[in-house]
Amino acid sequence: MSKVKIFQPVEQKKREAVAAPVTDAKAFHAVVDSRRSVRVYADDLIPDSVMKACMDAALKAPTSSNLQTWEIHHVVDSKKKAALVEACLSQPAAGTASELLVFVGRPDLWKRNNEWMVKALEERENVPRSALQYYKKITPLAYDQGWMGWRTPFKWAITRWRGRKKPYPREPIGKWGMRIWAHKTTALACAHFMLAMRAHGFDTCPMEGMDSARVKRLLNLPKQAVVTMVISAGKRADGGIYGERMRFDSAHFLHRH
Amino acid sequence: MSKVKIFQPVEQKKREAVAAPVTDAKAFHAVVDSRRSVRVYADDLIPDSVMKACMDAALKAPTSSNLQTWEIHHVVDSKKKAALVEACLSQPAAGTASELLVFVGRPDLWKRNNEWMVKALEERENVPRSALQYYKKITPLAYDQGWMGWRTPFKWAITRWRGRKKPYPREPIGKWGMRIWAHKTTALACAHFMLAMRAHGFDTCPMEGMDSARVKRLLNLPKQAVVTMVISAGKRADGGIYGERMRFDSAHFLHRH
Repeated sequence: MSKVKIFQPVEQKKREAVAAPVTDAKAFHAVVDSRRSVRVYADDLIPDSVMKACMDAALKAPTSSNLQTWEIHHVVDSKKKAALVEACLSQPAAGTASELLVFVGRPDLWKRNNEWMVKALEERENVPRSALQYYKKITPLAYDQGWMGWRTPFKWAITRWRGRKKPYPREPIGKWGMRIWAHKTTALACAHFMLAMRAHGFDTCPMEGMDSARVKRLLNLPKQAVVTMVISAGKRADGGIYGERMRFDSAHFLHRH
Repeated sequence: MSKVKIFQPVEQKKREAVAAPVTDAKAFHAVVDSRRSVRVYADDLIPDSVMKACMDAALKAPTSSNLQTWEIHHVVDSKKKAALVEACLSQPAAGTASELLVFVGRPDLWKRNNEWMVKALEERENVPRSALQYYKKITPLAYDQGWMGWRTPFKWAITRWRGRKKPYPREPIGKWGMRIWAHKTTALACAHFMLAMRAHGFDTCPMEGMDSARVKRLLNLPKQAVVTMVISAGKRADGGIYGERMRFDSAHFLHRH
């Protein structure tokens, strides 16, 4: 499809480390270890400054091709909040929460954001030509499924054909592939947000068991938007965590090759 | 489809907060702020203890219905590592990395893990009946798409019909829905892992532009497994980060309702 080289070959040479910002591993693990899905919240409110800091942390997650095809919808209006609680099947994790946020993927906005990237790179100094080429040639090849998805069968066939003899990127293909692509990027932001809340002394609960059609209607989202999850936040109440963390033996999940 | 009540209605009453473990917000933001996708790594190695701690942190991410349908494949054999670098299109972020990990979603294993959950709950004391009911009645309704997906059209029709008048959980439906479901859960673990590495003074790069078919062959994964992303890790080298972090104005992504 294109002869543009995405990557320079790796040179064989000695590579020295550079100083990176100092971080505190113990403090980080304290956040991860104490993060639990909280099902019942206390009445305490979350300061606006904390909400802002945590949403900012969410938007610092890595995002595929830096295209930032995510959105955070913070529902504060009491009527809309009540409707969102209902769309979350009225579960206590939603009903008792002080804050409710909807994390949304926007596969339909890849092109707009791609244009923004081109513009931003053109305005910067010392941008390597390959970076601009990436957003001018590679991302359209990767993400453009065409009007009504007409490119999809061709993408599928070309990917298969080219991938026979040498490595070829397989995804995303088609409408579902683009949904997966946006969901993944948005889920990374969700994880950042939940850990950030915990770091600030608050708790969260991710909810996928909800009526995404009603949520989209409530937020006035277009058909192509995807609701990755609703996340509730607040202070944990007594009995708000359902028992000890249950995890199967990690030997089932960690494989060494 | 079922008259089982998933959630108890929310009682109107005052709720007091309980003490939660103390965490350090500043230390957490230092991790998030300094995490960047590193494209060229130094030759430094990562201690095994750090790898272990970060993989453990990954497996503490929230996971849909706690079904843990994720896997981390840590590729250490030099031949397999070379093949994985190739499958990542030989990009420097893979080729110069000291460690390479493949994060895999396993929608096909929901039933096995669901049985484990039932067993684990039955062995615990003081488990509310509703928790067991959830894994005996609700999760099969939600995740079982039937042999060759025969349930999918019925699920779709029932969801639409039931969702007309009152909120009804819409996803996951069908093979693609299950893929999305597993990808989302696995992406949460990916974010935990990348932040954990940074907290320990190391860096990462998530790679989606790779040949997932080759990756699956290399790891001997079944057809139904999904490769969420490959993540490389190591110490950042001089010039290993491509410029300042570029993020569009957050006003595009943060919406208040």
